[in-house]
Amino acid sequence: MGADKKLIIGVFGFGVVGEGLYRVLQMTESLNASIKKVCIKNPDKERNAPAELFTTYKDELLNDDDINVIVEVIDDSVAAFDIVSTALKNGKATVSASKKMIAERLPELLDLQQKFSTPFLYESAACASIPVIRNLEEYYDNDLLQSISGIVNGSTNFILTKMFDDGIIFSKALLEAQQLGFAESNPDLDILGIDALNKLTILLVHAYGIVANPKDILYGGINNIQPGDAKLAGEKGWQIKLIAKAVKLKNGKVTSFVLPHFVTTDSQLYTVKNEFNGVVIESSFSDEQFFYGKGAGSLPTASAVLSDISALRYNYRYEYKKLRYHTPSELTNDLYLRVYLSFADLKNIPREEFEWIEEFFNAEQRNYLVGVIHFNKLLQTDWWKGEGISLIVVPDAIIENLDMRKLKKRSLELAGIVG
Amino acid sequence: MGADKKLIIGVFGFGVVGEGLYRVLQMTESLNASIKKVCIKNPDKERNAPAELFTTYKDELLNDDDINVIVEVIDDSVAAFDIVSTALKNGKATVSASKKMIAERLPELLDLQQKFSTPFLYESAACASIPVIRNLEEYYDNDLLQSISGIVNGSTNFILTKMFDDGIIFSKALLEAQQLGFAESNPDLDILGIDALNKLTILLVHAYGIVANPKDILYGGINNIQPGDAKLAGEKGWQIKLIAKAVKLKNGKVTSFVLPHFVTTDSQLYTVKNEFNGVVIESSFSDEQFFYGKGAGSLPTASAVLSDISALRYNYRYEYKKLRYHTPSELTNDLYLRVYLSFADLKNIPREEFEWIEEFFNAEQRNYLVGVIHFNKLLQTDWWKGEGISLIVVPDAIIENLDMRKLKKRSLELAGIVG
Repeated sequence: MGADKKLIIGVFGFGVVGEGLYRVLQMTESLNASIKKVCIKNPDKERNAPAELFTTYKDELLNDDDINVIVEVIDDSVAAFDIVSTALKNGKATVSASKKMIAERLPELLDLQQKFSTPFLYESAACASIPVIRNLEEYYDNDLLQSISGIVNGSTNFILTKMFDDGIIFSKALLEAQQLGFAESNPDLDILGIDALNKLTILLVHAYGIVANPKDILYGGINNIQPGDAKLAGEKGWQIKLIAKAVKLKNGKVTSFVLPHFVTTDSQLYTVKNEFNGVVIESSFSDEQFFYGKGAGSLPTASAVLSDISALRYNYRYEYKKLRYHTPSELTNDLYLRVYLSFADLKNIPREEFEWIEEFFNAEQRNYLVGVIHFNKLLQTDWWKGEGISLIVVPDAIIENLDMRKLKKRSLELAGIVG
Repeated sequence: MGADKKLIIGVFGFGVVGEGLYRVLQMTESLNASIKKVCIKNPDKERNAPAELFTTYKDELLNDDDINVIVEVIDDSVAAFDIVSTALKNGKATVSASKKMIAERLPELLDLQQKFSTPFLYESAACASIPVIRNLEEYYDNDLLQSISGIVNGSTNFILTKMFDDGIIFSKALLEAQQLGFAESNPDLDILGIDALNKLTILLVHAYGIVANPKDILYGGINNIQPGDAKLAGEKGWQIKLIAKAVKLKNGKVTSFVLPHFVTTDSQLYTVKNEFNGVVIESSFSDEQFFYGKGAGSLPTASAVLSDISALRYNYRYEYKKLRYHTPSELTNDLYLRVYLSFADLKNIPREEFEWIEEFFNAEQRNYLVGVIHFNKLLQTDWWKGEGISLIVVPDAIIENLDMRKLKKRSLELAGIVG
């Protein structure tokens, strides 16, 4: 314990994060870490570092016995898995920022870590600079965790903030985000909610010991949010936020999803604006805690990678305590959600799918309803992701069971009026 | 690594925290921890637990070979040190919530931990449920930490919130805090800033490896804050918050103090209301991060104690990395602060102590000035803590050196007008 070992690092990728890391390490001697080699794809691109630092042969890093740490900060998730899995097999402690790869290959990555007893750290993969993985793993390391709700994607939060604050439409807000570098030129991963889904998948294993396939988790994006939705939220004093969520139900099982939410001023997430991220962690006895910071960008990401590197000096590794030393929680889809739906044409809305409809509003500019629907009816269909349809989770949305017969009856009557 | 050992706990104190902990442990089997004995002072008080659990003889816990963890949650800091130091000497992992004791006896406690190689954890001693110590120790474990600023005392924050939101005077707000249980019947430790000072002392060792005597650190409280100060802050769109702060200066040294601050809407601390705590951590590359949660109360404290107990199962200990494996930072008093002073009578203000005075306002209801003063001139005097004088740090208050001759000259002229 406390042995401060010298780290010799091989880096894959020299984009903004890789180069940021190189600069930071040069500036911070006390880290006792140095980069021996950087593997890049394109040797012809001009780099702000000595030519001898670079190679295009991955084995020069992966098979170098001097190198005891591999840092992988590339964009290609297939190549990233190849690098990370080889590094772990070769006994090299590995740090990665590839959230998509980690989320999709989690079971294999867990096996590799255990089989080769090699640390694999990826704090930057969820909320970049916010140490949420480390805290879930180390501090909330018991079964008292009630829920975790996070704004985990900076691009979509920037877009939603613009739509709200400047009253502009989605496509214009997206363009602005792209111009400012807060959204990719191909923004689908972000705006469809897939990036948030990947991060949620990573958080689930550290929060609840749940190893889930992202394909099995309910998710939606913000691409269909209408100015009318934002206007309605504004009238009620709410915000719309894309939230990744995991909640322990009364039966001990966990429900988990990524969906746009109406957020009231009671929630700390209400205050998270622009490209920032924020996570609310609720545990049985400490009430709510809130972590806030920059969730994207080269320096926040490099800074999280750096903290991982730093932790490796002390032989830190994730122990996946909730998975390995506790009884892991189980995911459930056996619940109902109260959701708001806005739409152009009622005929695209399968009203019969709803248990009941509580509100219905019809006007020339916008139509919406608020209704209760079984979780599986959203998970197994995608009509609600269709053009012009926007689904937003309302506050207090989770209904564990429907013993409220009367309400249901009344609601069906209401639906009848609607229909 | 990962050995999940059974913890047999001896608890000192069965007040709200001790009893809370007892209940929580009963409810969470997965923690693999049980309380064998509780040492109390008063055997005649009725307790909500079996009589055989209790003893009044401390050695029944401290000398019991079965007991491998001592949890100390008593109010008496002298007795607390005696318990903790004996427990550490006897090789028992120890958890304490006594911030005053820890701050005042830190050098001895560091020695004991090292000499007997026994873990000593005290997350609840700073910001209760917010895992700030753990994060400073583990995640911000490098020399990139630029500053830490926190609202670390819930009572004073509750009082300031009441003064602001309800426009009431200090004494009335204090009474309300006492009635609601947010302030002690003897509130001096809180309102004079001493509790915040103790917490800052604890944070300094984990943030910067600085072992300071609280007596050497500049501090002030909120007891002299006037309605006029709150009114002025309100007019400028600011809040007044009691902030514990440590800032790394350009010369690499650290300045640290507890003082009331004017806080602008730019700061996350602006949003921290009532009995809540919040800490902003700024590091070179990740920008600002913000941690927020309940900073006091029996359950948040019990919950932090629980996380410490839980960490002991995995043999976690603070390594005081910045103190032991880095070159620790040094405290400096060689700087100037820009402060606001309000007062009833100008004759009580030693104007000659100021480098310059930037603003002066004189009215029947309130007088104030804004001026720049050397740090030592506050540290070594206490005229500014006198009746009717209120000192508040203004935004961008830290001035490392005064090469601004012109400004100084101009200001002395201004001061001349004043004088």
